[in-house]
Amino acid sequence: MAKFLTSRAENYSQWYNDLVVKAGLAEGSVVRGCMVIKPYGYAIWEKMQQQLDKMFKETGHVNAYFPLLIPKSFFSKEADHVKGFAKECAVVTHYRLKNDPDGNGVIVDPAAKLEEEYIIRPTSETIIWNTYKNWIQSYRDLPILCNQWANVMRWEMRTRMFLRTAEFLWQEGHTAHATKEEALEEANKMIRVYAEFAEKWMAMPVIMGHKSETERFAGALDTLTIEAMMQDGKALQAGTSHFLGQNFAKAFDVMFATKDGKQEYVWATSWGVSTRLMGALIMSHSDDNGLVLPPKLAPLQVVIVPIYKGLEGLEKIRQTVAPLMAKLQAKGISVKFDDRDTQKPGWKFADYELKGVPVRLAMGERDLENGTIEIARRDTLTKETLPLEGIEQHIENLLEEIQENIYKLALERRSKLITKVDSYDEFKQLIETKGGFFLCHWDGTPETEARIKEETKATIRCIPFDSVEEEGKCMVTGKPSNRRVLIARAY
Amino acid sequence: MAKFLTSRAENYSQWYNDLVVKAGLAEGSVVRGCMVIKPYGYAIWEKMQQQLDKMFKETGHVNAYFPLLIPKSFFSKEADHVKGFAKECAVVTHYRLKNDPDGNGVIVDPAAKLEEEYIIRPTSETIIWNTYKNWIQSYRDLPILCNQWANVMRWEMRTRMFLRTAEFLWQEGHTAHATKEEALEEANKMIRVYAEFAEKWMAMPVIMGHKSETERFAGALDTLTIEAMMQDGKALQAGTSHFLGQNFAKAFDVMFATKDGKQEYVWATSWGVSTRLMGALIMSHSDDNGLVLPPKLAPLQVVIVPIYKGLEGLEKIRQTVAPLMAKLQAKGISVKFDDRDTQKPGWKFADYELKGVPVRLAMGERDLENGTIEIARRDTLTKETLPLEGIEQHIENLLEEIQENIYKLALERRSKLITKVDSYDEFKQLIETKGGFFLCHWDGTPETEARIKEETKATIRCIPFDSVEEEGKCMVTGKPSNRRVLIARAY
Repeated sequence: MAKFLTSRAENYSQWYNDLVVKAGLAEGSVVRGCMVIKPYGYAIWEKMQQQLDKMFKETGHVNAYFPLLIPKSFFSKEADHVKGFAKECAVVTHYRLKNDPDGNGVIVDPAAKLEEEYIIRPTSETIIWNTYKNWIQSYRDLPILCNQWANVMRWEMRTRMFLRTAEFLWQEGHTAHATKEEALEEANKMIRVYAEFAEKWMAMPVIMGHKSETERFAGALDTLTIEAMMQDGKALQAGTSHFLGQNFAKAFDVMFATKDGKQEYVWATSWGVSTRLMGALIMSHSDDNGLVLPPKLAPLQVVIVPIYKGLEGLEKIRQTVAPLMAKLQAKGISVKFDDRDTQKPGWKFADYELKGVPVRLAMGERDLENGTIEIARRDTLTKETLPLEGIEQHIENLLEEIQENIYKLALERRSKLITKVDSYDEFKQLIETKGGFFLCHWDGTPETEARIKEETKATIRCIPFDSVEEEGKCMVTGKPSNRRVLIARAY
Repeated sequence: MAKFLTSRAENYSQWYNDLVVKAGLAEGSVVRGCMVIKPYGYAIWEKMQQQLDKMFKETGHVNAYFPLLIPKSFFSKEADHVKGFAKECAVVTHYRLKNDPDGNGVIVDPAAKLEEEYIIRPTSETIIWNTYKNWIQSYRDLPILCNQWANVMRWEMRTRMFLRTAEFLWQEGHTAHATKEEALEEANKMIRVYAEFAEKWMAMPVIMGHKSETERFAGALDTLTIEAMMQDGKALQAGTSHFLGQNFAKAFDVMFATKDGKQEYVWATSWGVSTRLMGALIMSHSDDNGLVLPPKLAPLQVVIVPIYKGLEGLEKIRQTVAPLMAKLQAKGISVKFDDRDTQKPGWKFADYELKGVPVRLAMGERDLENGTIEIARRDTLTKETLPLEGIEQHIENLLEEIQENIYKLALERRSKLITKVDSYDEFKQLIETKGGFFLCHWDGTPETEARIKEETKATIRCIPFDSVEEEGKCMVTGKPSNRRVLIARAY
């Protein structure tokens, strides 16, 4: 088989970039830091969206849409938010072009300068809370459980497709509650929705936990995260859910009348996942032959490649597999019969491997005679020849098995790369040699956190929900610590 | 019943604005000309999107995503396009804010000026054709049948919610073909998809036709349109499909090798509908009590309002309607039991009328005794009491009947307001007194078209596909004409 990709062992980073482009997921664009999401990549994103949207609606949320542009002054209203967000962003200053008097195309019309500049949303807390102000008068108006599917823009200096791009697609949930308890419960509920999606749909195990104060979302009192391990042992923050307290309600003066008639500030959460999940999906399962997609998110689950001589042979195969295709479709399984005559079967095999189609069927003349079909699974790259009769049930089971198997492989890989370490020297050595996730004691101070980051490029990914209480000493300062935190280098 | 709205007779325009806000569809925002699409409005848009997306996929299209920002210079590349588009638009000139040294929030960092400004896409032909350049080498790469769901921005001077907003949501199809015939067929196919959607889903009759040269999309050789009549007799352009010829291929140098190995420019189409359809939907069917929604696009199709005394009474009703709700849901009909104790039944009735829920059921104590239920339809505002037993089949039929009925009403209204006119004087009089659509002879010149527009505020909406060939004289100039065109005032 022709090798399309740099191997992971050779250059992991290059392998990723190759794969994104060659599998037709995305490509760079002329716009700095922005990508084009190509049809095959977008089809996977759509599958993700559909399932997430379903889960949001099942948990009582509704969708809405808020303006792309945010008045500049809004960013100054919440003190921590402005520090975190309002800096590297796209600024709209004018609203008109005019013909260049010198005849060189168009120029910005200096007369069309905005009184106040607008920022392309890097996130929408400010514009949404300014809107919620008009929606909320009394406890009867609460909770508000809105989600928005949207594009956002952050002028990142170093970009990588899907992982960090200037423009990206995401969803942002923004909820408003009458009590602190309810907001905390919401933030908690949604990080669990993300974890369930990651594990059951993306087949990607994640560790849930609290972010350290330093790593919190700008304006949040608590940030919950799901952290996944990529095949190179690095961590990827795959989704976050923020308890915002009353910060945005205070910044935008959003109060409500309680049942007792008192005026109180509203409690808030926000939570989001983005096209970054595409990067996480790719790096969780794929191999040197290309993508490995979990069947639940694969745009095409089964492909049938005919191996034939002449149009008559092709027609025989087509007629033989037609009932199978109908049966698979009736089970809700997507299937394609690839009868292109512009490509040879071997080329098609390699291409479907590159694209991560979970199950590939091939039928040749001998199969026609024997009533058999060849079935190949993408995850293990194994194949066998089976009777055509009843194969649809086998395929249905196999898709489930593949879904489970790639989760299991990812979990096993992660288990081998989670290390408990108590000495900073050992940590510094192992982060270079072994890599992966480390469970260590930390004294809880931003100073120690900053030192670890500076000296090892590793960061505190989270304080895991399931971290057990135990007496310990910070591996750096020796100060007391009562639970281990998760530390790793990260994307 | 409390009247929430200005009546249509009193002030049609105010009625529309009231309805959009009070039915919870959308509201204005602090961002000039931009709206917030509220959850109920967005739920209708989602229904539209789902159906349109299904129809696009059934006709062989795939989705993709292209950058929000477009380099300024791209607009100058296609000569007609720049005239039509690159003027009133949002211009990004800087990429960073910094703290105001005077301590007043944040200011634009003058050091972060972009070398070339970016424009927030008003439409994406330029960036997409610049991308297609890399996707197309040979006839094997054609056709490309991509669609994008996205937000776009045009700095409109006068805006109205849904009908004309600075930012709006839409889909834009962009296809690339090897031959002129194929591109023409595609443009034609997609305007028919839009017409089918308008008529079968929105219950909105439309007239398909060609735009005059003056009204064509900037850069198109032919623009096909669907024109709908609103209740006030004005036209609304609800969707367009453009045959772009080789204009964009030439502007962005997109050539392909034919089967014979020749290099030729690629043929293009683009087509789009937007959240403007929401305005069309509202103005097609709604009345002085509120929205009237076609059942196929109603987020909630059936609501059940219990009329009870005490919690025990409520429980009895709940248990009595529970099997009905299960049966409706099994039929794919959405249904809600509104057990809120914060509002009285009369208030709920008015609110569901305002929101356009097609079928409202009410059950009181007498119904419990008699085994009956009251059923009210939104379109006719009639109600009757029927046996509960077997009501689900009646409801299913009724939803279909309502869908057909509101289409029929819209069609009848339109039929009465389409007038053939042969004298310009008569036209000038009737456009003021009767309004609606006019079928007139026109000499085909932009000069006459401009004169009609200036003198009557009416425009040539289209040259209808079904316009029959007939000898005639232009109603303005008396010059020969061989078919009638559709003229109306428009949104």
